[in-house]
Amino acid sequence: MEKLKKYVSVKNEDHFYHQGAVELLIFNFLLILTILTIWLFKNHRFRFLHETGGAMLYGLVMGLIIRYVTKSPDVESGTVYECEKLESGPSTLLINITNQVYEYQYKREISHHNVNDHQGNAMLQKMTFDPSIFFNILLPPIIFHAGYSLKKRHFFRNLGSILTYAFLGTAISCIVIGLIMYGFVKAMVHIGQLKQWEFHFTDCLFFGSLMSATDPVTVLAIFHELNVDTDLYTLLFGESVLNDAVAIVLTHSISIYSPKENPNAFDAAAFFQSVGNFLGIFAGSFAMGSSYAVVTALISFMHLTKFTKLCEFPMLETGLFFLLSWSAFLSAEAAGLTGIVAVLFCGVTQAHYTYNNLSPDSKMRTKQLFEFMNFLAENVIFCYMGLALFTFQNHIFNPLFIFGALVAVFVARASNIYPLSFLLNLGRKQKIPRNFQHMMMFSGLRGAIAFALAIRDTDSQPQQMMFSTALLMVFFTVWVFGGGTTPMLTWLQIRVGVDPDEDLKAKAASQSASNLDKNTTKAESAWLFRIWYGFDHKYLKPLLTHTGPPLTSTLPEWCNPVARLLTSPSAYGDQLKDGDTVYIINNDELTENCDLSAHIPVPAQDSTDSIQATGKEDIQEGDLGLGGYKLQLQHTAGQPQKNSLA
Amino acid sequence: MEKLKKYVSVKNEDHFYHQGAVELLIFNFLLILTILTIWLFKNHRFRFLHETGGAMLYGLVMGLIIRYVTKSPDVESGTVYECEKLESGPSTLLINITNQVYEYQYKREISHHNVNDHQGNAMLQKMTFDPSIFFNILLPPIIFHAGYSLKKRHFFRNLGSILTYAFLGTAISCIVIGLIMYGFVKAMVHIGQLKQWEFHFTDCLFFGSLMSATDPVTVLAIFHELNVDTDLYTLLFGESVLNDAVAIVLTHSISIYSPKENPNAFDAAAFFQSVGNFLGIFAGSFAMGSSYAVVTALISFMHLTKFTKLCEFPMLETGLFFLLSWSAFLSAEAAGLTGIVAVLFCGVTQAHYTYNNLSPDSKMRTKQLFEFMNFLAENVIFCYMGLALFTFQNHIFNPLFIFGALVAVFVARASNIYPLSFLLNLGRKQKIPRNFQHMMMFSGLRGAIAFALAIRDTDSQPQQMMFSTALLMVFFTVWVFGGGTTPMLTWLQIRVGVDPDEDLKAKAASQSASNLDKNTTKAESAWLFRIWYGFDHKYLKPLLTHTGPPLTSTLPEWCNPVARLLTSPSAYGDQLKDGDTVYIINNDELTENCDLSAHIPVPAQDSTDSIQATGKEDIQEGDLGLGGYKLQLQHTAGQPQKNSLA
Repeated sequence: MEKLKKYVSVKNEDHFYHQGAVELLIFNFLLILTILTIWLFKNHRFRFLHETGGAMLYGLVMGLIIRYVTKSPDVESGTVYECEKLESGPSTLLINITNQVYEYQYKREISHHNVNDHQGNAMLQKMTFDPSIFFNILLPPIIFHAGYSLKKRHFFRNLGSILTYAFLGTAISCIVIGLIMYGFVKAMVHIGQLKQWEFHFTDCLFFGSLMSATDPVTVLAIFHELNVDTDLYTLLFGESVLNDAVAIVLTHSISIYSPKENPNAFDAAAFFQSVGNFLGIFAGSFAMGSSYAVVTALISFMHLTKFTKLCEFPMLETGLFFLLSWSAFLSAEAAGLTGIVAVLFCGVTQAHYTYNNLSPDSKMRTKQLFEFMNFLAENVIFCYMGLALFTFQNHIFNPLFIFGALVAVFVARASNIYPLSFLLNLGRKQKIPRNFQHMMMFSGLRGAIAFALAIRDTDSQPQQMMFSTALLMVFFTVWVFGGGTTPMLTWLQIRVGVDPDEDLKAKAASQSASNLDKNTTKAESAWLFRIWYGFDHKYLKPLLTHTGPPLTSTLPEWCNPVARLLTSPSAYGDQLKDGDTVYIINNDELTENCDLSAHIPVPAQDSTDSIQATGKEDIQEGDLGLGGYKLQLQHTAGQPQKNSLA
Repeated sequence: MEKLKKYVSVKNEDHFYHQGAVELLIFNFLLILTILTIWLFKNHRFRFLHETGGAMLYGLVMGLIIRYVTKSPDVESGTVYECEKLESGPSTLLINITNQVYEYQYKREISHHNVNDHQGNAMLQKMTFDPSIFFNILLPPIIFHAGYSLKKRHFFRNLGSILTYAFLGTAISCIVIGLIMYGFVKAMVHIGQLKQWEFHFTDCLFFGSLMSATDPVTVLAIFHELNVDTDLYTLLFGESVLNDAVAIVLTHSISIYSPKENPNAFDAAAFFQSVGNFLGIFAGSFAMGSSYAVVTALISFMHLTKFTKLCEFPMLETGLFFLLSWSAFLSAEAAGLTGIVAVLFCGVTQAHYTYNNLSPDSKMRTKQLFEFMNFLAENVIFCYMGLALFTFQNHIFNPLFIFGALVAVFVARASNIYPLSFLLNLGRKQKIPRNFQHMMMFSGLRGAIAFALAIRDTDSQPQQMMFSTALLMVFFTVWVFGGGTTPMLTWLQIRVGVDPDEDLKAKAASQSASNLDKNTTKAESAWLFRIWYGFDHKYLKPLLTHTGPPLTSTLPEWCNPVARLLTSPSAYGDQLKDGDTVYIINNDELTENCDLSAHIPVPAQDSTDSIQATGKEDIQEGDLGLGGYKLQLQHTAGQPQKNSLA
């Protein structure tokens, strides 16, 4: 008997393994279908449905099949058992059933109202994966890649505007959505669809903050394919990347905002605590991400006499790069900060410093690795969103709430983009034109981050309603707006098919106009830029990379012994002495050249890389815009251009 | 109150996320340490401790820290609760505890004797990850990579010997270990350390089969670094790769061998059922793996007029390649076959057909991707093995059993290698010399597969004892034998530092001896080789790749319309008409040339890729040894060499 029992248990467990394989196989199958569809679309130049929309569609169909075709054999799952002896839920529960002990793992708390929905089948439950997989495994590569492939020069030229849209814009959007939703919730309470105590103003703000995270994937992929105007591209990319970070921290701050007494009343102390929280978490995450990148840069830079450089072992280098970047995310999460923000700035910093120290082989390896992981993670998330519509078992679709969300999202986007653009245009000499503003308004798609934030906690009824609504908003915006991007570009008469070569000639012809632009954008970010650039170029670059002037010339004289130790031997080749300061002042003509260099045609092989192919030449320059170009000049000329600069 | 409760729950859940991050962070930290150590070792040319040994050591130390430093706050976990209402364990359990419903997920059955060990802390439990992650995620890349980087020419030249060692050798090893262990178990029962009914002969055989899986990683990495004799390298690599596959299927067959009556008596019917099972599962897995690879080859080969070739989108191509290969594994598992075997042969077939259709960019991308995944997965597994020694909570270390295992493993390895080498030498003209045999004997390290098979089920006491013992054997063999490889090579006077250039000259000088060798090895595998080669070259290659003669010349005339449709336009350039048959007969001089070509120096950038760098030129030839060289000749000559061959 004992024997028999053992084998039965082995077989059962085998069955469990196969189940794990089946679920992964379903995802693989969906991804393969998506890839084949993308291939088909690329052939026929379809643009009315983007690949992410396709992935969602396949997920949807698969969810439908799983829901209605697979049986529900596990009837007992819906029953609630009493256990008087327990006082709280332990993480592991051992239960004696007919003389056999079974181990159960704590999963979550369930509200009483959800218990009835719980008679679902095991397949559905298995297809619903743990939100922590989302946060710890699928999101980091996407966000890191966004940071790593950031077009730094363009980004920093538009830094002021981007920061305004990201911080102020997200705050506006969050508050506007919160207010409108609060109105709708009041109305729902009035007509009896909702009980008064269920939905507070903080819940509305929570919904507002999660719906404020816009998704760059779909629109920017189309922009990239169509070679849309670079400034519009940069504004949108920068906004949506930073805006995700802001929305995540905001959501976190709101979720821990707990006023002492009446949850609907305003509590100044709690509010300022939340604001403080927001700032602290943001700054902490930024510091965490950057410091990991700096450590990576230092390791890859090590040139102590005893050691071969790490870059002679591309596999180790790639591995270390990958692991340290992921650790930035995980450490931030473990420390109670926001991993997404950390990994974003880690990516930016890695591209700025570490990338310069890598061997050519590793440069390509890391680039391709992150690209590939980004591609896979993105498609998995969109497939999963499609699946979730049918496999998630506690959806609450409330038509009034959904309609309210639709209105709120539009109004919020409008009151974010138009007033801020107006304000920014007061300061900018190179205005953001009307059609750009309309396009930015139209490009407010919701995607992975909104979904991930909503799925993080779906226990209470308001949370379930918010999740279901957020999911529908993602579907709606990705399919309708994603599909409408190409017609909208035509309709708004935005320059598409900007041939880099022609653009280069055009810019060269309109020299004066271009010069005006440069001065404008420089002025816009100059105060921030100059300080940072000087510090970075003088101290950080030489310390962390093989480029830049040697530290012996930038540090005070008494630091010389240390400086000599820390400077890369190759840096002396670039020695410029006091050229830096001169350079920062006289950089107008260089900026011009530099801007031209940004339009060097992208190698053909990159044509399929969704967002970031044009980021490539940026990274290869490996410097903050201007500085990078200067160093390039030196490299090609073979000699430091002391005379021309001094 | 309701409000407050919700926020408390949110915070709890946040805490759970951070926990997930902490565990991943620990692994990241271990891997980073390992990489830095490898770097250090590579610098100092340390070879007494290989990187895998280092990874295990770090895992061990970390396990020690986690075990004894972290507290055990969750006292309730050890208590068993009664539940009379339940009759079997449902997959999800809802429990009402003080008016709050908690959801619990089924994890496993626990034997009564393990319940007391269960007061462990939550951290330990979290660090012990689900064995299905091992099987579904960590093992496939390692095995696929082994198949993908197989040095086909050398492998096929030694095919007969490798198959003998792998199939017959593993069977011998399994039976010998099983018998010896049964003797020790009897002794343990005799002195009262074990009860009669606990440990059957089938359990001993099970242990024998899992301990028969040898690990190629550590030794072969050293071999590669030292440029050890290619024949020895190929024999060991081929043996250990195939031997893993055989051991896995064997373990599975034994675990489902359930004699009707007395479990210790021999039941012929059940035995033959197991043998049939073994053959069926092996053949089925082989077919599953190969067919996925063929599908991939077909997709990547598609050249219908309407479609751009897939190879113009390297990202999609890489993605499809990756997903289809993984699907081969998952489908086999889902179908009740053995995924490891499927993914191994999928890798071999992908390298043979699909690789030829890839764009140069994708060739490199896939190669680097699989290399990287292999590198990470390998180090994660070795770290985890180190961790498991302290984090696994139900170890049973029985000194007698461990001693028995040590003896059994040695005797089994000896009775596998020496008699089989003797038999093989009767047939081989190029004998396997004594020192090679000793080295093969010495290289019987146990690694990831043995560990994975043992951890798959650790519920009963015999299983726990087997797991603990297997783990110790892995430690012992990796540290002692892995570390002793270099001294052993010196002591056995095996040629190391074989400079490919010099080897080439030496071979050219001893032309006659070499010719003799060729004939021998050819004769050894000729009967299998010729049939397969002819079929492959005539039909499969033209159908699945852009190389080989056009199908129009190899298929009967009435198939011409179909053949024309299916042949790649580029194949006509290589048209040879009946050259193939001639070639197969006259391939002596080509074999000679071909063998020389194998010693072309490996590009320097590959020096850190552990096992497979020398496999590179093999794959780039993209053909079964001889054939590949012929096609290369044609390509370099620009014209088909009709005259010289006909």
